[in-house]
Amino acid sequence: MYVSVIGGEHCSKEIYEMAREVGRKIAEMGAVLITGGRGGVMEAASRGAKEKGGTTIGILPSDSRQEGNKYLDYAIVTGIGYARNVLVVLNGDIIIAIDGHYGTLSEIAFALEFGKPVYGLMSWEVGIKNFNNVDELFEEIKRDLAE
Amino acid sequence: MYVSVIGGEHCSKEIYEMAREVGRKIAEMGAVLITGGRGGVMEAASRGAKEKGGTTIGILPSDSRQEGNKYLDYAIVTGIGYARNVLVVLNGDIIIAIDGHYGTLSEIAFALEFGKPVYGLMSWEVGIKNFNNVDELFEEIKRDLAE
Amino acid sequence: MYVSVIGGEHCSKEIYEMAREVGRKIAEMGAVLITGGRGGVMEAASRGAKEKGGTTIGILPSDSRQEGNKYLDYAIVTGIGYARNVLVVLNGDIIIAIDGHYGTLSEIAFALEFGKPVYGLMSWEVGIKNFNNVDELFEEIKRDLAE
Amino acid sequence: MYVSVIGGEHCSKEIYEMAREVGRKIAEMGAVLITGGRGGVMEAASRGAKEKGGTTIGILPSDSRQEGNKYLDYAIVTGIGYARNVLVVLNGDIIIAIDGHYGTLSEIAFALEFGKPVYGLMSWEVGIKNFNNVDELFEEIKRDLAE
Repeated sequence: MYVSVIGGEHCSKEIYEMAREVGRKIAEMGAVLITGGRGGVMEAASRGAKEKGGTTIGILPSDSRQEGNKYLDYAIVTGIGYARNVLVVLNGDIIIAIDGHYGTLSEIAFALEFGKPVYGLMSWEVGIKNFNNVDELFEEIKRDLAE
Repeated sequence: MYVSVIGGEHCSKEIYEMAREVGRKIAEMGAVLITGGRGGVMEAASRGAKEKGGTTIGILPSDSRQEGNKYLDYAIVTGIGYARNVLVVLNGDIIIAIDGHYGTLSEIAFALEFGKPVYGLMSWEVGIKNFNNVDELFEEIKRDLAE
Repeated sequence: MYVSVIGGEHCSKEIYEMAREVGRKIAEMGAVLITGGRGGVMEAASRGAKEKGGTTIGILPSDSRQEGNKYLDYAIVTGIGYARNVLVVLNGDIIIAIDGHYGTLSEIAFALEFGKPVYGLMSWEVGIKNFNNVDELFEEIKRDLAE
Repeated sequence: MYVSVIGGEHCSKEIYEMAREVGRKIAEMGAVLITGGRGGVMEAASRGAKEKGGTTIGILPSDSRQEGNKYLDYAIVTGIGYARNVLVVLNGDIIIAIDGHYGTLSEIAFALEFGKPVYGLMSWEVGIKNFNNVDELFEEIKRDLAE
């Protein structure tokens, strides 16, 4: 199973720690973590996943692997700019949106368009289930997966 | 000047007529109309623009020009699927979102990300100015352009 | 009918004049000219087409219309970098390759992959019909279209 | 280090076995194998790499992981069709072209355009070094890497 974590390149320390905890939990589920490969929420989730021995893949907008954060096992370059947002979403079986700005909103929109399950953590209110803490979020995910 | 009209492939008759009126007004401004080239709001805006002698370009997701509606002067095929949403937005100097579902939301998000002026007509409430009728929308656009 | 002219951004004066003549002939056929929108062969063909009142569309790699040459009626930006080469080819019913380097070779390859008719003018020898002058090239194109 | 192996989805049994041997050698070098993720040469190289405990990543044209062959550790979907050829090349530090048809030619062209080292195995004669057997190919690669 692949889980995509989407969120901004810039975030508060509080959001960073939440994203890191999300990364840990994804690794504990045995899922591969997909992100946009850059800083902020993407870095935090990847860092958390590596702390628990998970696998992390970053899908980058540019054609340079150097753009990736240091917690990626595999950095996939695309060279297609913002159109790479579509790939970040397409590669997840589940999408977790954490906080985030307009780029994140575009990814939530694509996830909904593709009919993928989307879970928010203090993210955009556009008809997705939003949670305020990581434990409640994963309880819901596990409940949905068990169905 | 290029104006992108974004909106769903399926829409009510009321929305269709609004989009058509938007197309007419874009043509009257002397601007080129950009859309995603398909049915619904995209067709209606292109139809309106042609009624007033405007120029219409559709940027299609597939690799087949047949996918385009019959009111397009130029159908540009892309073969990149949903990633073409980015192109529809990038090609507009101004973006008008009419009604719309998740695909439209992704395009509004990209427009905001790119710092482009976005005007809504009964569309998503995600921090853009939304109007209920076409005249008020164009009064605002003309006011903004005059500044 | 849309005709794509592919070729390098840098070319000799001789090739530039050939490409310009190709542009003129495409306009005289009543076809829309598609190019990658930049300098060299792309500019020359667009310039020739405009001299004969044709219509020119450039499909640009970047997200800036400023990248286009001054002989384009419509500059379509993509922001997807080299992946835009695919679009230049997909939009032509006929492909004419003039001289050119590796970028042009990638476009010839895609044209062959898509089963599109490709004509070369002093271009890559990879199984396409290559001509040394513009008149012979268009005699062949007209013969093929008549069939 | 990432090595991209490019080649056709359909190939002879002889080419298949060569590609499989190439995959084994890439794994033995400790490099990650990148392919287009489908059948033929792509499958053979991935199969060989897995036989030697290597890591295999496939970058697919469609949006469905099911399109990937069964020797992929990670299947990255793109949904951008032929434009994904650019990504297969961009992700390799070294490119090995085996046999192949027009799709492979487009990838060789991109590799040359990007200035990446390209090695051919019974592949297109477009200015790349072509070899007739796998051992000679890898001797050359190791010589180049040692420089």
